[in-house]
Formats: sequence, C-alpha cells, structure tokens
Amino acid sequence: MTDAVDELRRAVCDLHAELVRNDLVAWTSGNVSGRVPGADLFVIKPSGVSYDDLTPESMVVCDLDGTLVDGRHAPSSDTDAHAYVYRNMPGVGGVVHTHSTYATAWAARGEAIPCVLTAMADEFGGEIPVGPFALIGDDSIGRGIVGTLDGHRSPAVLMRNHGVFSIGKDARAAVKAAVMCEDVAKTVHVARQLGEPEPIEPADVDSLYDRYQNAYGQATARAR
Amino acid sequence: MTDAVDELRRAVCDLHAELVRNDLVAWTSGNVSGRVPGADLFVIKPSGVSYDDLTPESMVVCDLDGTLVDGRHAPSSDTDAHAYVYRNMPGVGGVVHTHSTYATAWAARGEAIPCVLTAMADEFGGEIPVGPFALIGDDSIGRGIVGTLDGHRSPAVLMRNHGVFSIGKDARAAVKAAVMCEDVAKTVHVARQLGEPEPIEPADVDSLYDRYQNAYGQATARAR
Amino acid sequence: MTDAVDELRRAVCDLHAELVRNDLVAWTSGNVSGRVPGADLFVIKPSGVSYDDLTPESMVVCDLDGTLVDGRHAPSSDTDAHAYVYRNMPGVGGVVHTHSTYATAWAARGEAIPCVLTAMADEFGGEIPVGPFALIGDDSIGRGIVGTLDGHRSPAVLMRNHGVFSIGKDARAAVKAAVMCEDVAKTVHVARQLGEPEPIEPADVDSLYDRYQNAYGQATARAR
Amino acid sequence: MTDAVDELRRAVCDLHAELVRNDLVAWTSGNVSGRVPGADLFVIKPSGVSYDDLTPESMVVCDLDGTLVDGRHAPSSDTDAHAYVYRNMPGVGGVVHTHSTYATAWAARGEAIPCVLTAMADEFGGEIPVGPFALIGDDSIGRGIVGTLDGHRSPAVLMRNHGVFSIGKDARAAVKAAVMCEDVAKTVHVARQLGEPEPIEPADVDSLYDRYQNAYGQATARAR
Repeated sequence: MTDAVDELRRAVCDLHAELVRNDLVAWTSGNVSGRVPGADLFVIKPSGVSYDDLTPESMVVCDLDGTLVDGRHAPSSDTDAHAYVYRNMPGVGGVVHTHSTYATAWAARGEAIPCVLTAMADEFGGEIPVGPFALIGDDSIGRGIVGTLDGHRSPAVLMRNHGVFSIGKDARAAVKAAVMCEDVAKTVHVARQLGEPEPIEPADVDSLYDRYQNAYGQATARAR
Repeated sequence: MTDAVDELRRAVCDLHAELVRNDLVAWTSGNVSGRVPGADLFVIKPSGVSYDDLTPESMVVCDLDGTLVDGRHAPSSDTDAHAYVYRNMPGVGGVVHTHSTYATAWAARGEAIPCVLTAMADEFGGEIPVGPFALIGDDSIGRGIVGTLDGHRSPAVLMRNHGVFSIGKDARAAVKAAVMCEDVAKTVHVARQLGEPEPIEPADVDSLYDRYQNAYGQATARAR
Repeated sequence: MTDAVDELRRAVCDLHAELVRNDLVAWTSGNVSGRVPGADLFVIKPSGVSYDDLTPESMVVCDLDGTLVDGRHAPSSDTDAHAYVYRNMPGVGGVVHTHSTYATAWAARGEAIPCVLTAMADEFGGEIPVGPFALIGDDSIGRGIVGTLDGHRSPAVLMRNHGVFSIGKDARAAVKAAVMCEDVAKTVHVARQLGEPEPIEPADVDSLYDRYQNAYGQATARAR
Repeated sequence: MTDAVDELRRAVCDLHAELVRNDLVAWTSGNVSGRVPGADLFVIKPSGVSYDDLTPESMVVCDLDGTLVDGRHAPSSDTDAHAYVYRNMPGVGGVVHTHSTYATAWAARGEAIPCVLTAMADEFGGEIPVGPFALIGDDSIGRGIVGTLDGHRSPAVLMRNHGVFSIGKDARAAVKAAVMCEDVAKTVHVARQLGEPEPIEPADVDSLYDRYQNAYGQATARAR
C-alpha cells in the first residue's frame, strides 16, 4: 500500500498547483483530496499551509471517518466533508473544495447556474445545483454535498454562502470539474449582465452530455 | 512533404501556448489547426490532451474529410468542423476554436458584437457575427461557420451557446483573430455595462479596415 | 537587535511580492510594514521604489513617530499612517496598505462589505467597515484607521475614496487580511451584480469566526 | 549621440514588457516611444512585431516628422501621432499608446473618468479627459492628443472609440501614466456598477495633486 499512497500524495500535492494556476483560490482557501485505491483511506491537504510550501510528504492520510492516520500535520479543516463524501459515494475517487469567485457569487445568491453553454452540457449535463447552508464542525456540509449530488449529473455543487465542492472518478477529474465550474460560472454571469442567454433544449443537453461522457478524449470510457 | 508537416506540427503545437497565455482556454477546451501547404491535409491538436503535455510529435495529421492520416492520438473532437472549413474555404490556412469568456457570453445571448472600436474596424471590418446553434457529430458546426464567414470581412464567428471559431491565412493569423475577438468582446462588454458606446460611421470603418489590411505591419500585403 | 531587524527586513521585503502575486497593487501603490519585536521600531517599504527593485537592504527602519532611524531611502509616503497604528494599537505587529481594485471600489462608494460568505465570517467576523475620508500629511489617516478598527473584529478597513489598510499580529497576517479583503470584495461585488446575496445569521457568523480564530491551521492559538 | 540612442533603445524596448506585465495590450496593439535627449529624434516600437521578438536593435529611430532615420523595420503605425506630440509639447519626453480594456471602454462611450480616488488626484490631478474621434493617416490623432492634454493636468487622454495616449517627462513616466490610467479606469468602473462613487472636493484634489507631484518618491522635483 505504501507505494500507492506515496504516488497519490505526489498527485494530490501537484493538483493544488492547478487550483493556483486556474485562479480558483486565495491564500490557503481550497483543497484537493484523493481516495487511496483499494483502501478505506484518502490523501488530503494539511490545514493552513500555503500552496508554495506543499510537498508530497506534507500531505496527510485520513480514514473515512476523517481521522488522521499518517502525516506530520493536522488535516484540512474541510476533512470531515471530504470523508463524508467518500463514505457515502463509493464511486467517487476525488473531491475538491474552492471559494472560486464567480461560482461562489452564484452560491451567495443561492442560485443554480443554468445550462446555456454546450461546454456546460458536456461536463455537467445540465444546471450546476445549489446545496444547503451548513456550518463547519459536524456532518452538515458532507450531507449537503451528497444530498445534492447523489443521483445528479453535475459533478459540482454550489454550497450556499460558502463555495464549490466538486467530485470525480479521481482527484484530477474533480479538479477538472472545479476548473470548468468556475469557467462556466463566469461566462454565464457575464452573459447575463447584458441580457438573458438563450436556453438549450433539454434533448440537446442530453445529446451533448452523452457524447462527451462516452466519446471525448483518448479513452473511450469514463467512469464516475 | 515530411519537412513541411514537421514544421507545421511545431508551429501548431507552439500556438496552443498563445491560447493559454492570452487566457482563451480552460483545461483542454480550445484547439488550433493549420493547413499543410500544397496538400489536402491539416495538422490539429489531439483530443483531451492538456496543453502542458502537447509536443510537436503529439499533433495529428488529418485529411480534408477529418480522417486521421498520421499520429498516435485521436484528433480533437472538433476536427470535423475544422475539416469542413478547409474543404469549403480554400483561402483559409488556419482555424482556431475557443470558449473564451467574453466572446462566448455574447454567443450565449446570440448577439453580434457591434463595431465601436477602431481596433475592431482594423481587424474585423465591422461587427463580429453570430452563427447558428449546432450540435457536434456531423457537418452542422462546419456549415454554420462557413455559412456565416464566407463573404464576410470578419475572421471570427460567435457560434450560439458554444464559442468562437476564427480563421486566417495561416494558423498564426487565426490565433491572432481569436485573441483580438476576446479582447474586443471584453472591451465592448465593459463599455456597455455603464451605457451605450458611440457608433463609428460605416465609411470610417471601411477606411480603417482598408488601411489596416493593406498597410499595417512589416509586410504590405496580407492574404486571407 | 540587529539580527531581528535584518530578519524583519527580509520578511517585509518578501511580503511585497505577495501584493504583486495577488494582484493587489499597480506600479508602486501598496506597502507592507512590520513591528520590530521588543522595540519601538518598525520596518517599511521605501517610497516610490518599484517592487522589482526592492531588496532587504532597501527596506527602511522608523520609530513610532515615523521618523527614519535607519535606511538609505526615504520611507513610504504612508509611513505616518503605519506609525500611528503602531503607537495606538500595541497588539498590532503588521500593517498593509493597498488600492486593490474591488475593495477600493466599495471604498469609493463609502459602502461597507456585508458578511454574506462563510470565508468572510472566518477572517473578518462580520462586515468590512468604512473609515473616513482623510488627507495625507498629518495624523488623519492613522486616526481614521484606529478609530474604525479598534474594538472591531475586522482586520481591514476601507478608507473612503482611497483604499484598504489591514492589520495583523505580524506583517504576514496583515498581508493575508489584505488578500482576503480583495477576494471577498470581488466575490460579493460579483454576487450583487445579478441580485441580492442571502444574509448569514449573526449567530452563525459568530460561530464561524470563533472556530476559525481558535482552531484553524497548524497552530491552535492566534493572537491579533 | 550613438550611446544615448543605444541606451534609449534598450529602455524603450524594456518598457514594452511593462505593457504586457500590466495587461495593457493584446497581441501587438500598444507602443512606447522616448525622445532622444538633446536631439530632434525619438525611439519607437517597430510596426506589427510581437512583444516577445522585440530587441533593442529592432527599435527604430524617427525624426520629429515621423520619418525613419535609423532602423531595419518600419516604424509603428502610430508614429505620426507620437511625432506630433513631440513637435508640439517640448516638455514631453515619452509617449505611450494602448487599447487597455477599461480605459478604452470609457473612450468607447466618450465619457471622462471622474476623479473619485485619491490615487487619481495624485497622478492625474482631476478627471481623465476624452479626446476627439480621429482617423489614422494624418495629423488628426496627434492634434486631438495635444489639443486635449496641453494645459491639462492629466498625463493621459481617452481618444474616442480608440484607446489611451499618455505622456510623461520620459518614456517610463508615460508608461506609469498608462498603467495608472487603466488601474483607475477599472476601479471607478467597478465602483459605478453598484452605485455612485462619492466625489472628492476640488480643493482636496488640488492638495493631493500638489503634494504628490512635489514630495513623493525619492526625488523631490518631478518635471513633466
């Protein structure tokens, strides 16, 4: 197991650089985690450490109750929410949390992002939904994420007054969903500033989603 | 032919870095292609590969039906649209596709960008037009691009609910058109947020366009 | 004392790079200072020197009246305001001043930023308040800062028609407050462009603030 | 004279990197020039060359009629406007032209930027004025710049439907004015999106302007 954990520590560490590069985070406000294949464990960012100082070794390992199993640092303060998702959505292999600006602005109004872009139909299969307001400290945030995303096509949820949680088959897919969520959140925001975007027919949304999930990229099958 | 293809693979690969640098793309969402001089072939980005991992060798070569002729990867999922443009617009040597934020916002509302900037008159010779909504999977997108741009001064079209396609005499010119399209899309958007921009007289637009296309830069003749 | 001053010169110099990286400053318009531990002195940016040219040696040392004590350059033109804060808020170990875009826009309207984000409750414990309009040249700015922040949870104040001053237990904490101030200023601005953000209950704001100030990060106690 | 010209070529070349770094330009759309001290000559960017490819040697030297005197490239297509300014404003040692987004948006509406920020009072001494619509090809643009800026405190003018021209005692000061122009154009735009900024009393604008022009920075006297 050690090799798989080491490899995941490196992957999860490196993916935090994508949060910075894609302008999804300020200071230490976002985090990435990945499930250890074949084990009831996940690797997550340590709490309050700046992105420049992250190393594979500084990543911490937790069990699915969010209890620290291995690592020199305290785990991210969002660990309980990540753990709840892994416990309750067995198909999820990666979780990302950000306060990215435009997505968080929709979350602050408690408004779902309507599916008016083909790129949104591709990645989200419809609107990006809103989850409940929840305080940190117990399972509330985790329950809100799972309650909103379980059975929904969208891999991202806008938690009210808070920010984005995204999921994926692995940590990289969850980061991609977080990047695309902010991208479409901004584009639809800008579109609506000067009028109403034209809707896309639900049948067209379905058609775009099916093709993208099944035929896009170098691999033809994408689990989620 | 091999040398010309190798050189084009390098050029097309490098131009993807301009999409990133000019903030036109998120994740893997944009692509550049270039026509092989003197052959019914073009070079295009492979599908779903991230910009950091692109190398000249990973670029793929397709014929004008969009069929893979040479390359280790599957071609971009937008290959059919690029191929249709090359088949039907013999003067076009480069095609670019992006979902750049501000241009895509105009596309989401189905609204052409009015020509209220001298830089727009220079590059686009008038408004940037809107093309039809079209699903991926057949010739619809290609037909929409060609039907809108053929005979139009603008080298860029805003495809409804989708994004931008731009053309040029070569891949670099098409990238320039994509960069300028987003630049003016943003400036005119910002201008309209607080009132109405002043129009430019059509005769002045013509005068600016003629001068820029014929006298600007180090070369005095610019084919398109 | 020399070693402590040298170390602080380096720290304060390096923190100016965070202002640039987080897009808080244009040209030479922002500055950071830090109190010398155990002495009535602080280290601050020299006036009108560009961020690229800053070195630890170019940082200047002033006493709490803002008088230059050591350094080859004139101190920042905002030195009097920093000095006033250090004289009157003994718990403050760092001060930052910026004209960051979104925060300054709220300041130009003389409007406090309402606490509608959990990240705002965490860092600011409520709204970010507005301070008075004050001319440079005497104690007016310093008095405005202290009069607004003393006894307030927020470590940042929006000085009318001017910009942001932020404070912290050390220079790094004050920089963090300046970064988070601009981040939430932008997010709340964007949210309000398309409607009204939902408020957070005062009891929830208190709960978030208490947890973040006492339990977040690797250290469990945070002085301010 | 050769040494002075060589030094200026290097300085003007390097200053173009500031246009890029401060996000003032797209593709090749902005340019910087500097007057050769003690000669009726100025150094300017070559036409249509991308910023990455600029070298001190590629900069061109023109006389005050805008005629190429030395250089392997054609001078910028904006050379006539720069030349007109140097001919008619003997105190000007540097000129910059950009289409920076927010400033150009004000120019597209033909609206001056009101002085509602202390940083604006410092640098511009009041509003940033609007100049006339003018076509390229004769002295119209130059006359519009000089007619607007001569006798005005502002070192920047918003040319209608076009962009910004800024001036300074040397090329660096003109670049600073261009950077600050875009910075305040954006901040005041953002402020006005959600209401009206509070005005600054004219006497306070005068006081801020006088202090900044005479006491700020390491040198106490600033010519313009």
